[in-house]
Amino acid sequence: MLSSDPMLNMVSLCKRRGFVFQSSEIYGGLKSAYDYGPLGVELKRNLAGQWWKSMIYERDDIYGIDASILMHPDVWRASGHLQNFTDPLVDCFDCKHRFRADKAPKQEPGTEVEFRRDGKTIKGKVGTCGYACPNCSSNSLSEERAFRGMFQTTLGPIDPLGECISAHYGKPKEEFLQEVRKVVEANAVYLRPETAQAMFVQFQNVVNTTSAKVPFGIAQIGKSFRNEIVVEHFIFRSCEFEQMEMEFFCEPGSQKEWLSYWVDQRMGWYRKFANHPENFRVREHGPKELAHYSDRGFDIEYKFPWGFDELEGIASRTDFDLTQHAKASGTKLSYFDPKKEDPETGKPGWRYTPYVIEPAAGLTRCFLAMMLDAYTVEEGKDASGADKSRIFLKLHPALAPIKVAVFPLIKKDGQPEIAEKIAKDCRALGWNARYDDVASIGKRYAKHDEIGTPFCVTVDNQTVEDQTATVRDRNTTEQIRVPLDQLTQYLKERLSWA
Amino acid sequence: MLSSDPMLNMVSLCKRRGFVFQSSEIYGGLKSAYDYGPLGVELKRNLAGQWWKSMIYERDDIYGIDASILMHPDVWRASGHLQNFTDPLVDCFDCKHRFRADKAPKQEPGTEVEFRRDGKTIKGKVGTCGYACPNCSSNSLSEERAFRGMFQTTLGPIDPLGECISAHYGKPKEEFLQEVRKVVEANAVYLRPETAQAMFVQFQNVVNTTSAKVPFGIAQIGKSFRNEIVVEHFIFRSCEFEQMEMEFFCEPGSQKEWLSYWVDQRMGWYRKFANHPENFRVREHGPKELAHYSDRGFDIEYKFPWGFDELEGIASRTDFDLTQHAKASGTKLSYFDPKKEDPETGKPGWRYTPYVIEPAAGLTRCFLAMMLDAYTVEEGKDASGADKSRIFLKLHPALAPIKVAVFPLIKKDGQPEIAEKIAKDCRALGWNARYDDVASIGKRYAKHDEIGTPFCVTVDNQTVEDQTATVRDRNTTEQIRVPLDQLTQYLKERLSWA
Repeated sequence: MLSSDPMLNMVSLCKRRGFVFQSSEIYGGLKSAYDYGPLGVELKRNLAGQWWKSMIYERDDIYGIDASILMHPDVWRASGHLQNFTDPLVDCFDCKHRFRADKAPKQEPGTEVEFRRDGKTIKGKVGTCGYACPNCSSNSLSEERAFRGMFQTTLGPIDPLGECISAHYGKPKEEFLQEVRKVVEANAVYLRPETAQAMFVQFQNVVNTTSAKVPFGIAQIGKSFRNEIVVEHFIFRSCEFEQMEMEFFCEPGSQKEWLSYWVDQRMGWYRKFANHPENFRVREHGPKELAHYSDRGFDIEYKFPWGFDELEGIASRTDFDLTQHAKASGTKLSYFDPKKEDPETGKPGWRYTPYVIEPAAGLTRCFLAMMLDAYTVEEGKDASGADKSRIFLKLHPALAPIKVAVFPLIKKDGQPEIAEKIAKDCRALGWNARYDDVASIGKRYAKHDEIGTPFCVTVDNQTVEDQTATVRDRNTTEQIRVPLDQLTQYLKERLSWA
Repeated sequence: MLSSDPMLNMVSLCKRRGFVFQSSEIYGGLKSAYDYGPLGVELKRNLAGQWWKSMIYERDDIYGIDASILMHPDVWRASGHLQNFTDPLVDCFDCKHRFRADKAPKQEPGTEVEFRRDGKTIKGKVGTCGYACPNCSSNSLSEERAFRGMFQTTLGPIDPLGECISAHYGKPKEEFLQEVRKVVEANAVYLRPETAQAMFVQFQNVVNTTSAKVPFGIAQIGKSFRNEIVVEHFIFRSCEFEQMEMEFFCEPGSQKEWLSYWVDQRMGWYRKFANHPENFRVREHGPKELAHYSDRGFDIEYKFPWGFDELEGIASRTDFDLTQHAKASGTKLSYFDPKKEDPETGKPGWRYTPYVIEPAAGLTRCFLAMMLDAYTVEEGKDASGADKSRIFLKLHPALAPIKVAVFPLIKKDGQPEIAEKIAKDCRALGWNARYDDVASIGKRYAKHDEIGTPFCVTVDNQTVEDQTATVRDRNTTEQIRVPLDQLTQYLKERLSWA
């Protein structure tokens, strides 16, 4: 049964067909982490593979890396994440809004405020904290609590906290707390909240080992972790997620040109796979959305069921990151172009800190967008007028988890053997092909429609007689008979993206 | 300059050529985490891709998944990891040996012991702890400290520890410690120390969504994290590492047969890529190496410079994991075979908990083994008798990071344009091909020998005249001229693994 809520239908399909399961589901599930099932892992691999191909194999100016998730904590000090990810949070007891204390408008303690509680308007006064709830003006607020956007852990097998408590317990509370904070901070490492920083930190190693010349990029696909305050929309915003990020290093002054180049490139990439390109759009960041170091930025957005929302951010980050890391680490992170003139001295040879354009895509968000884009309901009625709609995932063949499914019509008369052989021949071509003999042919077609298999091949009685099999097209349901000895060639042409 | 230590040469090559960098190197590096550079990421991807192909695409009985790194903590309680990974550790102040207190031989307090300190033999007595150092018999030992093999972190943006300290400070120390332990444990989640558990936890979801029939497997590639007491041998033993694991579910009683099947399969996989298959061996686990639930096991080992050491463990895990998770979660994790007779009742239809064979390979260890296996020094002398050895990485073409490198002999006379076009044609075939015009031809050959590029194509004056280019074979240094219009076809045949 279809719900009127497209997200419910999608979540249900993902679970029922093995695209996405909740993490640790049998234990009640882990908040905001997901496991990709047998079909989901293929779609995710295909998306990541297409991105990597477009960034690395089809170009000569981008270098891949794969950095560790645990990085030196000084990386996050220099980048600003440690400060920005540890803000004081306050909960409003009335409207349940959670907000950053340091961002709430300051009000003189004692200032009168009016707010709603249990349907009634209440009058009160701002407390000593110096702010009311920015959402409902209530003065009934929790204490400020440290918000930790980054997941923190400890490197080394010995727990330093226990020893610290033993050594300092009994001291005045403030002094004790300071000792605890000191030891926790001294031993803390963080799960990266983005993959980008590794590209800055390893900038010089990449230049030295590849003889890369500006403009060039460094790209990475990998997991990132954020302790989100709000997790929502299924895999759209989760604590563990996957990114595809590229830092493109260019000459100062050329960043505007490259920003617009990369917005075009990335939109072209999404549109290549989209059935409904009109649901993908570019939106320029307003002045308030720009990070303080960024001089311009765009979002590529998809029209999700809850409205347009971010798929990928493409930011002009100036020379902020390289400059910060050079300063903090004492390492030179710059580029020397012997062919250019130094604009300050007018002498030949120019050493500069490159500017950076960053197309940062969410792989798991892209997964959701492509599933929603592909989800197609073809309305129809049977002879009696009852609903007989066909649901299929119109996934681009490059993205489809299974390329070809092969069925024997019945499980005897040599049909399974022929079908197995066809599946094997397809697998030899590197395709994910599956043999399937479970349930009626109609149900098998319906299942493979719903998981986006572009072609189903059916072996029947006639196959045994005339050595032809039926090939059914997922998009049109059209069926044609193809001689067995031309089958893989025929499928190869129809799957010609490969 | 080559060192006499093969590991030093390997670490140097990895860093110099962009295979492996230390994580966060510009900040002094993070202990035991590594970043894979532009060439390393390709070798790692190729290894992982070959494993996935052999497990998923070339077979019809194994299903892939990609589960989250953060899992519900109950998973680790049920699996036994939480208990086994939190043992009490003791340091010996004399010989610096670190050992598990609960595994040290018990001795009556007061028992006389003899040990060496500063070159002298010392006599002493066993203390109240009831053990001496199992390595040197010293009684000069640290207190027992909790050892945490799993990385622990907290899900949720609020730090629970600060609040707990505020609420309970001032209580008796033991009571306070208990409160701290309680709150830390209640909020703890762990980075998975192995990928395997997700295959057990999602067993039922995979069966339900794929109609998988026993025997079948579930496979996964992904990162795991262990707070190792000793990190060593470069990427061999590190805290953040990558695994390729498969759980093969089979009928009780058939496990011995499947164990030997998988040992053969996996050895075949390594040997397919090896230049020195004699350096790969199978070793059966001794009775003391077997986990208490395992009924048999093997290691596939490689002859590393420090001796034979583990690449992959292949264990028969009985029904331990599924049984534990079924018990702990209250979920049925079993399989019903309608075609079999229940051996207890003799009635048709048998519901049982499958037995499991687990081939668990280390992707990052495999990376190191394949690099060492490929590292070749071809000794030679020049006319004057000076050393002119050639170093090359004899990597299997399927594993080589760059398949084809294309050089213009000189950077003019139209040579760069022809070379660029050849590189582009190669890339269009899906190969990682690179154009390279840096340094002399000799140096470019030497570089691509050292990074394992199977073929170099050089465009020279003659190319412009007769439309042929030189193809140089990495293994033999043989050069032949191939017409440009037959070039990609020629390379395709030589790289015929693809």
